[in-house]
Amino acid sequence: MGSASWRASGLVTLLTDFGLVDPYVGVMKGVLWGAAPALRAVVDLAHGLPHADVARAAFFVERSRAWFPPGTVHVAVVDPGVGSAREILLVESGGSAFVAPDNGLLDPLREADPGARAHVADVERLGLAGGSRTFHGRDRFAPLAARLVQGEAPASLAAARAPGAPRAVLPRPERAGELVRGRVLFADRFGNLVTNVAPEDLGPGPFAVLLEGRPARRVGTYAEGAPGELVCLLDSYGRFELALGGGDAARELGLGAGATVEFREARGRS
Amino acid sequence: MGSASWRASGLVTLLTDFGLVDPYVGVMKGVLWGAAPALRAVVDLAHGLPHADVARAAFFVERSRAWFPPGTVHVAVVDPGVGSAREILLVESGGSAFVAPDNGLLDPLREADPGARAHVADVERLGLAGGSRTFHGRDRFAPLAARLVQGEAPASLAAARAPGAPRAVLPRPERAGELVRGRVLFADRFGNLVTNVAPEDLGPGPFAVLLEGRPARRVGTYAEGAPGELVCLLDSYGRFELALGGGDAARELGLGAGATVEFREARGRS
Amino acid sequence: MGSASWRASGLVTLLTDFGLVDPYVGVMKGVLWGAAPALRAVVDLAHGLPHADVARAAFFVERSRAWFPPGTVHVAVVDPGVGSAREILLVESGGSAFVAPDNGLLDPLREADPGARAHVADVERLGLAGGSRTFHGRDRFAPLAARLVQGEAPASLAAARAPGAPRAVLPRPERAGELVRGRVLFADRFGNLVTNVAPEDLGPGPFAVLLEGRPARRVGTYAEGAPGELVCLLDSYGRFELALGGGDAARELGLGAGATVEFREARGRS
Repeated sequence: MGSASWRASGLVTLLTDFGLVDPYVGVMKGVLWGAAPALRAVVDLAHGLPHADVARAAFFVERSRAWFPPGTVHVAVVDPGVGSAREILLVESGGSAFVAPDNGLLDPLREADPGARAHVADVERLGLAGGSRTFHGRDRFAPLAARLVQGEAPASLAAARAPGAPRAVLPRPERAGELVRGRVLFADRFGNLVTNVAPEDLGPGPFAVLLEGRPARRVGTYAEGAPGELVCLLDSYGRFELALGGGDAARELGLGAGATVEFREARGRS
Repeated sequence: MGSASWRASGLVTLLTDFGLVDPYVGVMKGVLWGAAPALRAVVDLAHGLPHADVARAAFFVERSRAWFPPGTVHVAVVDPGVGSAREILLVESGGSAFVAPDNGLLDPLREADPGARAHVADVERLGLAGGSRTFHGRDRFAPLAARLVQGEAPASLAAARAPGAPRAVLPRPERAGELVRGRVLFADRFGNLVTNVAPEDLGPGPFAVLLEGRPARRVGTYAEGAPGELVCLLDSYGRFELALGGGDAARELGLGAGATVEFREARGRS
Repeated sequence: MGSASWRASGLVTLLTDFGLVDPYVGVMKGVLWGAAPALRAVVDLAHGLPHADVARAAFFVERSRAWFPPGTVHVAVVDPGVGSAREILLVESGGSAFVAPDNGLLDPLREADPGARAHVADVERLGLAGGSRTFHGRDRFAPLAARLVQGEAPASLAAARAPGAPRAVLPRPERAGELVRGRVLFADRFGNLVTNVAPEDLGPGPFAVLLEGRPARRVGTYAEGAPGELVCLLDSYGRFELALGGGDAARELGLGAGATVEFREARGRS
């Protein structure tokens, strides 16, 4: 059924921690363009992730996929275990395909979509077991993506063995009575602190927000924050975010991944 | 007439202050590729602008447009007022289209081209008034650009209300007798100091150049500067630029946006 | 024969030291898309090279070309002598074309491929002698590349005069008995130290590795290094590389380009 339903759009996205100073990303694109005549475009999702930050990569992939057309091949290579025994995963979800090392990178996606089908790539059968031991992006991930672009379904590239169960690479918000405690996942380029708390984690009522004990006012847009005021708003990832009016919250507050954010529902509300 | 004359080339440029560490730019491209089958390519103009530097973005858009073919859709999102009441502008100029927040970003372009036609985008009529309040790049600008790529003219996407008059977001050179006083607009990646002074602001004669009181020698190319020598040359933006031979003028002189540059015409010249 | 054999793939790569904060790279792409209807895609090889680092650019071009399909036009602009009398080179090698300033950037390629044909671009005859004196990337290199994409062969764009002989812009490993002494060429984004030593520079036997006197253990993958352990592995450039297990060798050891690496063959081996 995977095979029957796969229709490639000709679009590939790349997410890596390779940066753009070295030619690693460019070389992956050379392999893609050389091997996939049906390729329409390669879109860079992000390449400046901190080295080996699998959790952030996993968040970016899961939260970005809704904005790409079905049939997109999403390639994510944050891979500190490159060359070791770790497998390569192929996941089909929502009509698109995902290729990444089996290190948790695709696990938030697999958890978010119960209909996702995960496979282990059969690199031996596909003739991809040789090549460099240090750059699977070029020698394994790009060739796999090219085959998907050319119309081969994820299932047709799969080994018989089953992938492991998804791991929890992102912290989950915890509830204790009227209190929901979450975590800052990372600071974005503006210094805004993206948390793991979504509207569906909270009740419907108004709530008070504390970032490491500092109160934050709930607003709708960044522009509503007075200069230097700590505000909390629903961001474009569908998560609550802490921002400093006209400022850089991460730098000015000295906070980043792991900082605690608390949402306390107001009493006496129906 | 706008409608009759608009012919999209399939090319889109993106200019933002989003940086490339987060997936914001990539997600905008996903929306474009998904919504515009006629899209040929998306070109990144620049994404590393300082946060909210509308003036620099305005300069880049106005000075870069000549190098793209007619029918290009230029999207510029430096938008500290995202989600507030500010409008979205659509400007048609020289056969190309420009989409940006109405915060001054397109005003140097509107001033440079008296034939430019500016419109307010009718986001309500176009069904774009919903979506995120924090990421109009994805939810408004990219969908507007996709419609332009698909052949809808800027005027056909416009509301009845007229846009405001252009504001002066870039300083203008001032003339006082034989003296023309300009400003450094920004330092580029090499530390070269780009000013707001163009050859047409000066008389035809030779002139002496002072950067914050330091004399600069007029040369034709960067390679002519002796090591450590301050030179002034006409740059590829069509503006005078101050550079340090073999060095980084911004860092070594500690100068940047706002620094004063004076051009004094030599006496006794016909 | 050059003319007869040139078949463009529609692919262009760009390598510059322009960075991505300014619109210089985007403007080059505008020229390419405007002038080359046969253009399929532009791939960024790297733009974050240190200013004027011709040697690193030369290494990247020579070591990356194998991963792009024949018919690719590789444009490399690291050009501190822009606007001076230096020539522009066109090199045809392995079915692909290379365009760069004649400052050594293409010399490792010319040395690696004895069959490479090098030409001086005839900018006067091609009408490219005007334009900016500070941005040949836009006014000369991109128009030359567009003509190659459109099917004109490198030889057809050449002047009658011959290019100079290749220079040695990269250090070569030196052999003294059982000792091969190489150099670190640069640190990549992970802090891994890429050297100029290839397996073919060494004998077949096991060897001891010393980086500025520090012993390094020979491994196959980054993941094999214990935390903080200095290891040496064959990298994806086909060169030996020094890495620190779980760390950043360049930063933690304070080493970079020019550091000495020694490979000593074990005694008594056949």
